[in-house]
Amino acid sequence: MDQIAAVGAAVRLSDATLAEFHREGFMFFPNVFAADEVELLRREAHAIFELDRQEVWRESTGVARTAFAAQTYNEAYRRLGAHPRLIAPVEQLLGGRLYMHQFKINAKAAFDGEVWQWHQDYGTWQRDDAMPEPLAMNIAIFLDDVTAVNGPLFLIPGSHAAGVQAAGHDLATTSYPLWTLGRETVRTLAEAGGIVAPLGKAGSMLMFHSNLVHASPPNISPFGRTIVYLSLCRTDNHIRKFARKAWIAHRDFTPIEALADDCLRELAQTTAPPPA
Amino acid sequence: MDQIAAVGAAVRLSDATLAEFHREGFMFFPNVFAADEVELLRREAHAIFELDRQEVWRESTGVARTAFAAQTYNEAYRRLGAHPRLIAPVEQLLGGRLYMHQFKINAKAAFDGEVWQWHQDYGTWQRDDAMPEPLAMNIAIFLDDVTAVNGPLFLIPGSHAAGVQAAGHDLATTSYPLWTLGRETVRTLAEAGGIVAPLGKAGSMLMFHSNLVHASPPNISPFGRTIVYLSLCRTDNHIRKFARKAWIAHRDFTPIEALADDCLRELAQTTAPPPA
Repeated sequence: MDQIAAVGAAVRLSDATLAEFHREGFMFFPNVFAADEVELLRREAHAIFELDRQEVWRESTGVARTAFAAQTYNEAYRRLGAHPRLIAPVEQLLGGRLYMHQFKINAKAAFDGEVWQWHQDYGTWQRDDAMPEPLAMNIAIFLDDVTAVNGPLFLIPGSHAAGVQAAGHDLATTSYPLWTLGRETVRTLAEAGGIVAPLGKAGSMLMFHSNLVHASPPNISPFGRTIVYLSLCRTDNHIRKFARKAWIAHRDFTPIEALADDCLRELAQTTAPPPA
Repeated sequence: MDQIAAVGAAVRLSDATLAEFHREGFMFFPNVFAADEVELLRREAHAIFELDRQEVWRESTGVARTAFAAQTYNEAYRRLGAHPRLIAPVEQLLGGRLYMHQFKINAKAAFDGEVWQWHQDYGTWQRDDAMPEPLAMNIAIFLDDVTAVNGPLFLIPGSHAAGVQAAGHDLATTSYPLWTLGRETVRTLAEAGGIVAPLGKAGSMLMFHSNLVHASPPNISPFGRTIVYLSLCRTDNHIRKFARKAWIAHRDFTPIEALADDCLRELAQTTAPPPA
């Protein structure tokens, strides 16, 4: 994982890392983005959460839960969505050019951030968007330190290997409709693979298979936990059904051209707030 | 912590451990109870959860949340409540003889275990029971492995030092009425002391000050997380108000005589289920 861990270095996943991904269904890379890059993204995320836009969904209490499609209306997130530290390893792993299927900034606000029940992302993409195959990768970029206390992501290692599981459409638990798995399915998978909670500093990056079963508990702590989730899909695997809003399930299948490695840092330096 | 960590050894807290307790408000001891002792307690806990008694409280879904006063109707828990690995260090720390103020087995069931909001136990004991001083100790004994994913206890180190905080009586969030702290109070204390989640194997023991601010999130995992909570109070500090049920806030102030160190092991050996 050293290739990505060294900020700014060329990205090429080793055979050992690839083998681990195929077995476990996820890869965790600490320190992918440096403090100035994270600070830029965090500042812009909080500005986006204040916007009165249809793309910004809220918890029942009114605080932001998810902001969709920020790469289409924010320069920092436009650059993040074409960042070579994401694009290069996912092109390598999926074996082709990529487009952005979904782009979310999940706030999981202090005290108010609600549960995400156990689910597979590809389950939703298959059912709702007619994506042909699970040839898409989830990427989670931590904008805050993720600890045991602020609602970390829970993953069931190896659960991607069993394919799409039966699911029910949960419209009740939280404000976002989701295809969620039954308890017996979750229990069986977790007894086989266990459950892990990848914890790490802001700037860390988690990549996980679109069939990996995951969830996250409420955040009852006073510490925020903002994570950017990008879903990169192989262009020839683009969705066939356009039932959901285009800002939720994107329809621009043009291959992403990766930007330069300093694309975020350059913006951070030109837009940093003046010293207090 | 080696004194308690060595199962069965005589218990005497070192000056360094005492200093750490006074500063942080808690002490964590792994491996206090051995596998056979834990297995006995776990088996008896699950039998108790099946009982149709007023002492067994349930979540809104019907699964057990808390069983009170098991030391008064179960032999294994009677012995646990007088176990020298608990009684000796708490007598040393509080400087006097002890009685049992409260005794709970908290189930935090797989999938269904609900949140415990941020609170101080002594806040409730002072308001509801007129306990004169915070001269009582909370002891948590893990009957399951406690991990980041099954609803671990969250503690704010050092938060005991500020004394009793203002609190509101929460009758809505869960099935158990609790004096809970406001968000600004929790935020201020957590920014000063951080938040820790003591994780450990079944058989571990956590002791924490009765003014330490703590909470625990829901358990969304398929793994149970049963913890026994005992609250030992100095006999001369006994409660003055008898507003709550006697099986919630006990009224037997007779000093506890510690049993022999093998009291649980002996019972485990005589009551083990026959080989399958």
